[in-house]
Amino acid sequence: MKPLKVAVIGGGSTYTPELVDGFIRYYEELPIESIYLQDTDTNRLEIVGGLARRMLARIGVRLCTTTDRAEALHGADFVVTQLRVGGMAARALDERIPLDYGVIGQETTGPGGFAKALRTVPVMLEIARDVSQLAPQAWLINFTNPSGLITEAILRHTDVKAVGLCNVPINMVRTIAQALEVDPSRIELDYVGLNHLSWARRVWLDGEDVTARLLETAALWHGEFSPTLLQQWGMVPNYYLRYFVHTNHVLEEQQNGPQTRAEYLQEVEAELLRLYQDPNLNEKPTLLETRGGAFYSTAAVELIRAIAQDRREVHIVNVQNGSAMPDLPPESVVEVPAVISKSGPHPLAAGPLPASIRGLVVS
Amino acid sequence: MKPLKVAVIGGGSTYTPELVDGFIRYYEELPIESIYLQDTDTNRLEIVGGLARRMLARIGVRLCTTTDRAEALHGADFVVTQLRVGGMAARALDERIPLDYGVIGQETTGPGGFAKALRTVPVMLEIARDVSQLAPQAWLINFTNPSGLITEAILRHTDVKAVGLCNVPINMVRTIAQALEVDPSRIELDYVGLNHLSWARRVWLDGEDVTARLLETAALWHGEFSPTLLQQWGMVPNYYLRYFVHTNHVLEEQQNGPQTRAEYLQEVEAELLRLYQDPNLNEKPTLLETRGGAFYSTAAVELIRAIAQDRREVHIVNVQNGSAMPDLPPESVVEVPAVISKSGPHPLAAGPLPASIRGLVVS
Amino acid sequence: MKPLKVAVIGGGSTYTPELVDGFIRYYEELPIESIYLQDTDTNRLEIVGGLARRMLARIGVRLCTTTDRAEALHGADFVVTQLRVGGMAARALDERIPLDYGVIGQETTGPGGFAKALRTVPVMLEIARDVSQLAPQAWLINFTNPSGLITEAILRHTDVKAVGLCNVPINMVRTIAQALEVDPSRIELDYVGLNHLSWARRVWLDGEDVTARLLETAALWHGEFSPTLLQQWGMVPNYYLRYFVHTNHVLEEQQNGPQTRAEYLQEVEAELLRLYQDPNLNEKPTLLETRGGAFYSTAAVELIRAIAQDRREVHIVNVQNGSAMPDLPPESVVEVPAVISKSGPHPLAAGPLPASIRGLVVS
Amino acid sequence: MKPLKVAVIGGGSTYTPELVDGFIRYYEELPIESIYLQDTDTNRLEIVGGLARRMLARIGVRLCTTTDRAEALHGADFVVTQLRVGGMAARALDERIPLDYGVIGQETTGPGGFAKALRTVPVMLEIARDVSQLAPQAWLINFTNPSGLITEAILRHTDVKAVGLCNVPINMVRTIAQALEVDPSRIELDYVGLNHLSWARRVWLDGEDVTARLLETAALWHGEFSPTLLQQWGMVPNYYLRYFVHTNHVLEEQQNGPQTRAEYLQEVEAELLRLYQDPNLNEKPTLLETRGGAFYSTAAVELIRAIAQDRREVHIVNVQNGSAMPDLPPESVVEVPAVISKSGPHPLAAGPLPASIRGLVVS
Repeated sequence: MKPLKVAVIGGGSTYTPELVDGFIRYYEELPIESIYLQDTDTNRLEIVGGLARRMLARIGVRLCTTTDRAEALHGADFVVTQLRVGGMAARALDERIPLDYGVIGQETTGPGGFAKALRTVPVMLEIARDVSQLAPQAWLINFTNPSGLITEAILRHTDVKAVGLCNVPINMVRTIAQALEVDPSRIELDYVGLNHLSWARRVWLDGEDVTARLLETAALWHGEFSPTLLQQWGMVPNYYLRYFVHTNHVLEEQQNGPQTRAEYLQEVEAELLRLYQDPNLNEKPTLLETRGGAFYSTAAVELIRAIAQDRREVHIVNVQNGSAMPDLPPESVVEVPAVISKSGPHPLAAGPLPASIRGLVVS
Repeated sequence: MKPLKVAVIGGGSTYTPELVDGFIRYYEELPIESIYLQDTDTNRLEIVGGLARRMLARIGVRLCTTTDRAEALHGADFVVTQLRVGGMAARALDERIPLDYGVIGQETTGPGGFAKALRTVPVMLEIARDVSQLAPQAWLINFTNPSGLITEAILRHTDVKAVGLCNVPINMVRTIAQALEVDPSRIELDYVGLNHLSWARRVWLDGEDVTARLLETAALWHGEFSPTLLQQWGMVPNYYLRYFVHTNHVLEEQQNGPQTRAEYLQEVEAELLRLYQDPNLNEKPTLLETRGGAFYSTAAVELIRAIAQDRREVHIVNVQNGSAMPDLPPESVVEVPAVISKSGPHPLAAGPLPASIRGLVVS
Repeated sequence: MKPLKVAVIGGGSTYTPELVDGFIRYYEELPIESIYLQDTDTNRLEIVGGLARRMLARIGVRLCTTTDRAEALHGADFVVTQLRVGGMAARALDERIPLDYGVIGQETTGPGGFAKALRTVPVMLEIARDVSQLAPQAWLINFTNPSGLITEAILRHTDVKAVGLCNVPINMVRTIAQALEVDPSRIELDYVGLNHLSWARRVWLDGEDVTARLLETAALWHGEFSPTLLQQWGMVPNYYLRYFVHTNHVLEEQQNGPQTRAEYLQEVEAELLRLYQDPNLNEKPTLLETRGGAFYSTAAVELIRAIAQDRREVHIVNVQNGSAMPDLPPESVVEVPAVISKSGPHPLAAGPLPASIRGLVVS
Repeated sequence: MKPLKVAVIGGGSTYTPELVDGFIRYYEELPIESIYLQDTDTNRLEIVGGLARRMLARIGVRLCTTTDRAEALHGADFVVTQLRVGGMAARALDERIPLDYGVIGQETTGPGGFAKALRTVPVMLEIARDVSQLAPQAWLINFTNPSGLITEAILRHTDVKAVGLCNVPINMVRTIAQALEVDPSRIELDYVGLNHLSWARRVWLDGEDVTARLLETAALWHGEFSPTLLQQWGMVPNYYLRYFVHTNHVLEEQQNGPQTRAEYLQEVEAELLRLYQDPNLNEKPTLLETRGGAFYSTAAVELIRAIAQDRREVHIVNVQNGSAMPDLPPESVVEVPAVISKSGPHPLAAGPLPASIRGLVVS
């Protein structure tokens, strides 16, 4: 396999060292020739690029930084998009404005998520059209939120091969594995829904159905879902569902909280960028873990590996529905298990949604 | 992983050395503790069992022969069914009688296939009910024809975990790989249909669509399908489709042929059984390849390995439809790619059938 | 056509004179032989039956009152069910209790509607089973709320030919006709949904689409729906939808209102029963119009006429879904236009629901 | 209602006196102002127009003949299309050529029907585009074969309001009524399929299911269908199904017959035109009944009346599928019962096809 060129759009993100760390961990199995970090913020690009370059030095992968999208994309094998239109300041507004109207403020759901989609889709379509021109063979791995909507826009309006990725599924597997005290590789999920509106209908441990047992494992839930609701669903919800089902409770939390998530992250990011500038730092700092996006790099690099090596493994990704979820139109993008091969993601047949969640999902 | 007990119902089949050969080839990866050959024909059981025992001697796997189905099934991890109700003599009638009425005589399709189903389903349901009692955790790997109908009967009328297997898909991959002069592992199929009524809608080589190129590869077809039909379909048909689409031609061939397939195979089998009795023979004889069922053992043992080791690999198998092929009822058994894990086969979403084959498949 | 026997279960209802009035108005076209009023409340039966008897005297139809359900049902051609399990006192609780929990209290929707369903379904199934025994040829016209759920229970669990009726559709036609100042017969509706959760997707006047014009006709709405919502829907909602979409507003109204609807109706009913006792009264009093259920008798008698005379007219009724609304299971009961013939109601194909209401309807 | 202008494209057809007779029979209920006969064959136009004018004289309807399509269409309320591209000579080829290849020759099915569609669709689209320009409010009633395909082409490629009509459904009702010795109005059909590929799934007489009884009524079938097949279907087939199910038998009949249907009809038409020229003839001659198309005018005029008067009656017509038959795409044209109103035809929900005919219909 020829060594790969990877372009990271929004490469000045404080996430980037996490992604770079992933490429380093998998380097023996998945040789990379070069990583291009592209961003519009030259200051962040310099700081984050500096750390990334120091990290990659030991394995000899070339790291280039550029503000020129065309340079980054040209001939790339994989394009990872992790940008944030308007930066953390815009997210702060998405989370703050709805609260004034008595509605939950959240980055990817509700009015905040919709505002984010409105300002992000046009930019992502421009990027996708560049990919189509400059790297027509490339796969676009989208990590930009709202990941499902963005991926759907790209698949409907361009010919780019795009897959949407979110770290919710990989984290769900890991959280469940921890609760059961087993290795995550022994867990299999029957997972269904839309990005941030999804459930594991069934959970298997070594092929045995452990869903009912899990739903009673209080430790798994940190009180985020009422036991009655969990019993009614009979399915394992992802964390974001609390915004949909315990709306009043979450709203109260947010209205009484000292700051929004974005306000908090602005402080974390400032501190991260300060740390990244240390010329002696050549690995991702521990503080990065509090930034969110845990296991993001594992999910992304394993997905890239599956495509590049035509591995035909199952990953839970955001993919064009086709007939996977017959309750939704074929052109929708859904978050389901799919076989990942070099020919693309092939979703498993999920079948009709349970009545208990159907209305919420198709709305 | 604990060593496995495998029960082979119809173990006196001349195929058995092929299957045993498979278990030997994969032994390092898939340790077997014991193989039970069960059959109602004690003569065949002695001859075939003798060869199987000599073959297995070098890896130390225990081989038992028995006419007692309960003994074979009790506590088995996998049950392979490869029996033939009425033996080759019944098949000869299935192939001969329709010819007298101006209809193709064929073992698995048309009136011959239906006659075979009628006499086989009740026997297979009895076996499945025994499995349910004596080896409730076992997976039943059905190789008995008509494989789709038999598997559907078991899945609809018992609680046994059954998967239907046919060597058509694995042979299609290998034939295509030969025509393209590449390793079969580089070929991926978008395969859809029913057992012996199936097509590869798309063929990928290293992720690239090579379907159109293949359809023009005359060498692949041996003149079995008209180029016009291949162009219209735009899909790679399996061999058996000639019985459905070139009916008059095949009928003429059969009516003018010197003997039916069963009549020919009766001679082959007699010769095989003669060879098997040679006490110095401890591997499968080359003649067995002419028997049909090529790569049967590879398909079967790789499927067993995928289940036993929860590998979540894609195999093309006969599986309950669910929503995989929305043109057919959920309880139908269809032949499609499925992710094979310890929790069972999970079919990929095949979506609506192309109009050119829809009527034939749903009839 | 042989003269019909009509049984009214819950015949002591204050609605009954309305229904009787309908039979009188249509008598020439639809000859009735006898009407049996059955009720468990002998006092009401006597009062209401007395008035009904005086009303029917002039056309010579026999009116019988009885507490014996079997007597009423035996050999009936049509059975009209309009009972209220627990009476108006139970309804008052359905409307009052939810208010204490900050939820709308309503007779047919929300927790109040569900409570009503829970206590009514078993009684209705008993009645339906009696119909199945004593009047197997009869059609059961259900007017008991929640009309959709009750009809679904009967159709799923008995073999009785039941149709659910509600006066919302007929009133929607009349309200629209008034707003357009035309005769109701010139209005045609493309109506879709569930009982009390329904919309006219399109409204035609003499075959011309006037939906957009209607949505701007402020007079039609009495401020019950926000103009923005009406524009988004692009469909004419039924009155009950305000409980689903303007929840906070309605809740506030209810919490600040002087009394619940049931409390108000208890007063109206007391007054009605007082009036009914006047031996000189032989027609329905005007006060009955404030009771609700306007045009109930027109809807019911026209439906009975359509069945009895095999007229194959379109009525909007609650009927088994089949494939009419593909977003809902076939065994659901939906409220849609159906051709009414002697062989039963045959729903028109409504097709997929608009995305704007799909989630609400399938929940 | 304002008096109607009706344009008949292909008005020189020998059918025209039949259609004109229908308008006369229904004149009191459905006042017509003028009928325009348009044709490219001036000779036929003169002969047929002459008879039509004499027939209409007694009711005072104006009859115009023209070769100018624009003149005929301009401002028409209804456009009836009954043309035959290539005339009877082309039909003779459609019926004769397939016989040379051992295939049934038939005007509306098989290769003959397909050839007819290929040469007719472009002409009909031109006509429909003229209607769209010159009579945008008009309804196009298509009687040109193959009626389903033609109607589908118009509905997919123009904005004309078209309904396809065939006399098979009305004849089926009448044949059944005759067999049962009852008035046709007492018969109701659950009818499903495509034009000339259709069945009555259920037949009701006064609301009672008489399907099973009918299937045993030998007199109904004239030996056209085998009793075994009728029992298997459990449905009443239309006459044309014999071309699909008793193929060998029909082929033999055709190959041994003295002349094709077209060849026979050419003789009939010559005789009809000779009769039409008689200046004393002012009604349709009895010979016309042997021409086929019985009750064509009843079906056509009743359909026009239902639309013009917004009657919302059920007619069995060729209409855009939508969700009526979920086994076929929404844009297909199917032959099913539909409510006919001024807003258009609204098909009833037919639901999934029985397995016994599904493959044939969706092919």
